[in-house]
Amino acid sequence: MKFDLVILGAGSGGYEAALYAHRRGMKVALVELSPQSVGGNCLNKGCIPSKHMRHGAYLLEKFQKMHGYGIVPGGFEIDIKGLKSGREEIIRSIREGFKKFAQQVGIPIFYGRGVLKDRRTVYVEGEDKKINADFILLATGSSTTKVGQLSPDHRRIYDTDQIWDIEAFPKRLLIVGGGAVGVEFAYIFRMYGSQVMLVELKDRLLPSDYIPEESSRYLARKLKKLGVDVRLRTSVENVQEKDGELKVMLSDGSQVDVDIILLGVGRKPNTEGIGLEDVGVKKDDRGFVLVNDYCQTSVENIYACGDITSPLMLAHKAMYEGRVAVSHMLGDRDMKRNDLLIPKIIYSAYEVASVGLTEDQAEEMGYSPKVGVVSFIPNPKAMDDGENEGFVRLVVDETTGDILGCHIVGPHAGELIHQVVHVMKAGLKIDFLSKSIYSHPSLSEAIGQSAMEVYFGPISWVKGGKT
Amino acid sequence: MKFDLVILGAGSGGYEAALYAHRRGMKVALVELSPQSVGGNCLNKGCIPSKHMRHGAYLLEKFQKMHGYGIVPGGFEIDIKGLKSGREEIIRSIREGFKKFAQQVGIPIFYGRGVLKDRRTVYVEGEDKKINADFILLATGSSTTKVGQLSPDHRRIYDTDQIWDIEAFPKRLLIVGGGAVGVEFAYIFRMYGSQVMLVELKDRLLPSDYIPEESSRYLARKLKKLGVDVRLRTSVENVQEKDGELKVMLSDGSQVDVDIILLGVGRKPNTEGIGLEDVGVKKDDRGFVLVNDYCQTSVENIYACGDITSPLMLAHKAMYEGRVAVSHMLGDRDMKRNDLLIPKIIYSAYEVASVGLTEDQAEEMGYSPKVGVVSFIPNPKAMDDGENEGFVRLVVDETTGDILGCHIVGPHAGELIHQVVHVMKAGLKIDFLSKSIYSHPSLSEAIGQSAMEVYFGPISWVKGGKT
Repeated sequence: MKFDLVILGAGSGGYEAALYAHRRGMKVALVELSPQSVGGNCLNKGCIPSKHMRHGAYLLEKFQKMHGYGIVPGGFEIDIKGLKSGREEIIRSIREGFKKFAQQVGIPIFYGRGVLKDRRTVYVEGEDKKINADFILLATGSSTTKVGQLSPDHRRIYDTDQIWDIEAFPKRLLIVGGGAVGVEFAYIFRMYGSQVMLVELKDRLLPSDYIPEESSRYLARKLKKLGVDVRLRTSVENVQEKDGELKVMLSDGSQVDVDIILLGVGRKPNTEGIGLEDVGVKKDDRGFVLVNDYCQTSVENIYACGDITSPLMLAHKAMYEGRVAVSHMLGDRDMKRNDLLIPKIIYSAYEVASVGLTEDQAEEMGYSPKVGVVSFIPNPKAMDDGENEGFVRLVVDETTGDILGCHIVGPHAGELIHQVVHVMKAGLKIDFLSKSIYSHPSLSEAIGQSAMEVYFGPISWVKGGKT
Repeated sequence: MKFDLVILGAGSGGYEAALYAHRRGMKVALVELSPQSVGGNCLNKGCIPSKHMRHGAYLLEKFQKMHGYGIVPGGFEIDIKGLKSGREEIIRSIREGFKKFAQQVGIPIFYGRGVLKDRRTVYVEGEDKKINADFILLATGSSTTKVGQLSPDHRRIYDTDQIWDIEAFPKRLLIVGGGAVGVEFAYIFRMYGSQVMLVELKDRLLPSDYIPEESSRYLARKLKKLGVDVRLRTSVENVQEKDGELKVMLSDGSQVDVDIILLGVGRKPNTEGIGLEDVGVKKDDRGFVLVNDYCQTSVENIYACGDITSPLMLAHKAMYEGRVAVSHMLGDRDMKRNDLLIPKIIYSAYEVASVGLTEDQAEEMGYSPKVGVVSFIPNPKAMDDGENEGFVRLVVDETTGDILGCHIVGPHAGELIHQVVHVMKAGLKIDFLSKSIYSHPSLSEAIGQSAMEVYFGPISWVKGGKT
């Protein structure tokens, strides 16, 4: 069998790339481990099911704030079976929709592990087939990996592959790792009624260079307010099971008893055992595939996208890189990979969204950053929705007016950030954003106000003093 | 007293213009009827209180769809007092915040009707004061006006100034007018338990040239599904009060009995009795002030913004025009009024957002429109949120690639549309939008997919047939 393009992995990156390549006229095939894993980690064990539960958590938080809308709820009960079937139905619907659509448009999916045999041949172990292609795209994603002493046992200690299987919300939960996964599950479990402790080794939640400390701290305060026991600069020293519970010794000397532990840390790129070495695809010492701006590997006709190209393991990074790779195969040179412009979005007690540089990063890189910050507290739409917490931070280079970054915490931050992504990607400057049009009332107004703050300067009381 | 700028009206347009002018160094004063009317119609009797109730309605609709999140609510009661006090608290907080902030930064507010005495003098009737200014901005807004036979009586027949005062949700409500106000209140009252009939004279809801029929029809179907009795091509012929209810005769020959009627139609610009004629400010025959692209009236130093410049009576149009006017006073020429780029956003059972041209308008204007439509039905984020209804329609000129318009119906359409507003305002073309970055899962992805649909063409099954 001969294709223009064969893609290893039908996760977010592979599937998006397949559809895009098909749309642009290429004859494409996908190779995926099994019919159950189509859609990859994001769909089956990651962002899709977690966003579903996170919306449930959001509704549960809403229950506490309904009186201002004249709604007096008569309490509620939690039915984890309903939650699981709602979740499974979404996953199933998307996955089967994927498969059906691929079949209808004529993109075959071969099931089994795909291994590179030579630079234009993929061997599919499961179906014992060889597929030839002019181009190969590696989109094999990542897997959970053990970090430290704790091993998931699917019984009391869960990783993010396993946590979906719990039969009841635990009374007491310890989450290890205050990154994107940890803060999301902390919010979910807390709202569904668990006592939650969240331990993070670093000195803040979301300890990523891309996310400003202000966002981390704002989120941490909210989680604490909701009753999450947030422990920073803390690690798990030792865990012992006794009398049906886990006795956890923490690095701060305290001991806590919990029912289950969720490990929210540690993923590794899936770049072993697929023949990369045999055909000359180079990797770095952490196992990531080396790619250029166009997602091209060290082998000209072999490309890579997503979790295997850098530690920024986001579904939409994979999807964007998938399109970058296909574009390049077709001779385009106008799309390039760009981890900086990939929005980083965390869904927890708030949505936390970042794109571009933080103020700290900008300073380190020699810019003269000027920052505009506008709170959602007085934002009329946010007030109407009972969600007036959070802020918009714009980081701008004072010399050039270039928008270097934007950091939003608060309602629908994950959607709002897109307007800044587009504006930054187009190279538009802060004067543009400050003079654009924002509807009223809207959350988006906070972006416009933040832009005005930077471009025209703040509304100062001193200025008023001259009258 | 002498100011750089005096503004008649401290509603959305006037207040925004005052802060913007102050930010840019002008000495500004506001004239407003009374301390209770600061913030204008939008804040006190319009979009802010209605969005608050609309969020309540959204929560009530959510109650019906919680089982998929494992939440089994134990019913609820409606407490209209809680609703009203929640609403009043938001209005009060914003209005008093406005006043306090104006005072702190040194923008005086004079209370009373402002009347132009000459081209540089405003007389404030209430305070019996004359104010001189180099520039005057008219931002006096609009008022409800009687349309047809029905007169609001604040007892059984209400207009949008009065509806806030009802003491209980009526059992049966008739709403006259299927425009933005009508469809918003139809959703609100329906969700709060009223039987609602919505009559509209034209052949569709939201009968505006700016809004495509597809949006109207999609919304109408949803309102009907929620139990709203939508009657198109229908008007009220006669109303009689009898036995404590209103007997309404409709133009379709049917008779309905209702408890109250809400008049959702008819506003007129507030351009009478403020001396416009005396100083030479010209109006059209409907009473709108004639302005150029920079919001300048026929008198060089007098500007106008908002509801008095055109029938597009939206708070953010007023706010944008306020900034356009002030910019022009300061010598800028890069901001211009533009009703087309002002997003039109309706909050009902869905959010309905439009910017730019519809397909019909584009055809009439001689463009070769190509349309990309993507549904929210299979959108993973929308599915996770249980809100996967609606669509994104992009209207693009096939010849040039110019984005002519965008029409979104569905979750958070009113925020999502901003990314297209910015892109259109910047003159970026469809290739840009199709190659930009969208997070996954997000609602914004539907915009990117719609752009790809237009730019690269749809993913056709026929194409796949060749493999």
